[in-house]
Amino acid sequence: MRIESVQNKKIKEFVKLHTKKGRDEKNLFIVEGHHLIQEALQSSCLKELFILETVQNPFSFPAIECTQSVINKLSSQISNAKMIGVCEKQKNSEKKKKKVIFLDEIQDPGNMGTIIRTAHSFGIEAIYCSKNCVDVYNPKTIQASQGALFHIPVYYCDLYQMVSSYRKDNMKIFATALHQKSIFLQDVSIPDCYGIVFGNEGSGIHQELIEQCDECIKIEMATFESLNVAIAASICMYTFQYQKR
Amino acid sequence: MRIESVQNKKIKEFVKLHTKKGRDEKNLFIVEGHHLIQEALQSSCLKELFILETVQNPFSFPAIECTQSVINKLSSQISNAKMIGVCEKQKNSEKKKKKVIFLDEIQDPGNMGTIIRTAHSFGIEAIYCSKNCVDVYNPKTIQASQGALFHIPVYYCDLYQMVSSYRKDNMKIFATALHQKSIFLQDVSIPDCYGIVFGNEGSGIHQELIEQCDECIKIEMATFESLNVAIAASICMYTFQYQKR
Repeated sequence: MRIESVQNKKIKEFVKLHTKKGRDEKNLFIVEGHHLIQEALQSSCLKELFILETVQNPFSFPAIECTQSVINKLSSQISNAKMIGVCEKQKNSEKKKKKVIFLDEIQDPGNMGTIIRTAHSFGIEAIYCSKNCVDVYNPKTIQASQGALFHIPVYYCDLYQMVSSYRKDNMKIFATALHQKSIFLQDVSIPDCYGIVFGNEGSGIHQELIEQCDECIKIEMATFESLNVAIAASICMYTFQYQKR
Repeated sequence: MRIESVQNKKIKEFVKLHTKKGRDEKNLFIVEGHHLIQEALQSSCLKELFILETVQNPFSFPAIECTQSVINKLSSQISNAKMIGVCEKQKNSEKKKKKVIFLDEIQDPGNMGTIIRTAHSFGIEAIYCSKNCVDVYNPKTIQASQGALFHIPVYYCDLYQMVSSYRKDNMKIFATALHQKSIFLQDVSIPDCYGIVFGNEGSGIHQELIEQCDECIKIEMATFESLNVAIAASICMYTFQYQKR
């Protein structure tokens, strides 16, 4: 099959996936580039594959040949992309995990993607997002996650309920907050089963959610500055996983 | 003073600061937004201040009133910016420091800015960049550094010579590399005086530079993935500064 026109019905349908509304309605999302398409294929999420007519299909998955203008119409990340995949959103099991993070209103798609990528590297088993977090299927998030999205379940939920439910199962929940009473990360006694909450880029974690947590922690700094939330989250996740106990 | 036209001579001169060539020739760079201008002013770097005609000047520094189109002409970061500062590049002392980092061909301006921001938070006293690193006065770098650039000296130099010179002064230099023989970060015995080298986003540190270093270190991960270089650098700098010894 071959598509030459950006007016093609299929293309016009999939362009809608550039918006959250479109992705939610169709339960689909777009990935760009060889690495992410490979990851999608391995995770059995890949539903459609569009490849530039001059490029050979490197995947064991049937591709639709397209002109550059058609590929560009589907693309929002890579300039003159060569391949685009349309994927089905994953269904995640509801099973509780032992090491999780909670994201309260993370707004920047790059931060969200970087946190997902790093969480996967540091043994986090699930990510719970408040409903006002940026969409995990935002193209910039997918790009920054470098495919980790296909390996770690991400849920949108009521964080208050989820934190409370995990606490009932004896998970210790840590809120990251620059409060005076917060204890330094390096002084935390790290349990086997933990949740860590990270907050909005500007305003941090909602006060009512902080009050639901067991302990407040903060990262020591030589100068009073703030850290980017993806940096702060990475340092916490690394330390919880690998600090000598 | 008031400027209405983007054809104004001063504006045409300063627009050249959008390129590295222009910044190098004039020894000036542009900052955008209240926070960065404030930092520039406090560091005595601010040379010219342009403020939107409808906005009151919040600084104790004379401003040139401009129309939105003039401000937009000078701006490359913030949509409909309200204030733009033109700053003089800083002259840094040549004095050796006790905790430094070396950046080998970092290419992404956002990564560079984030590393500068985090380095300042974690007690790093100087940053040495290879000459093929991205320009530290790139607008995206300045934005990501969140003003830390005004507090920590950044040098462009021959990294081989600089690493060698620091080693002669008994500084221990660590290369970050995903080699098999690299030791895990949490197992490093951390000296009082150290340098850490971080490499290019795609290819890491040049092999000849690795060979100049005392030790290779790597960050342990639960899954075999790579980390974003700004994330990896932050975890290393944090651990060197605050890990229990």
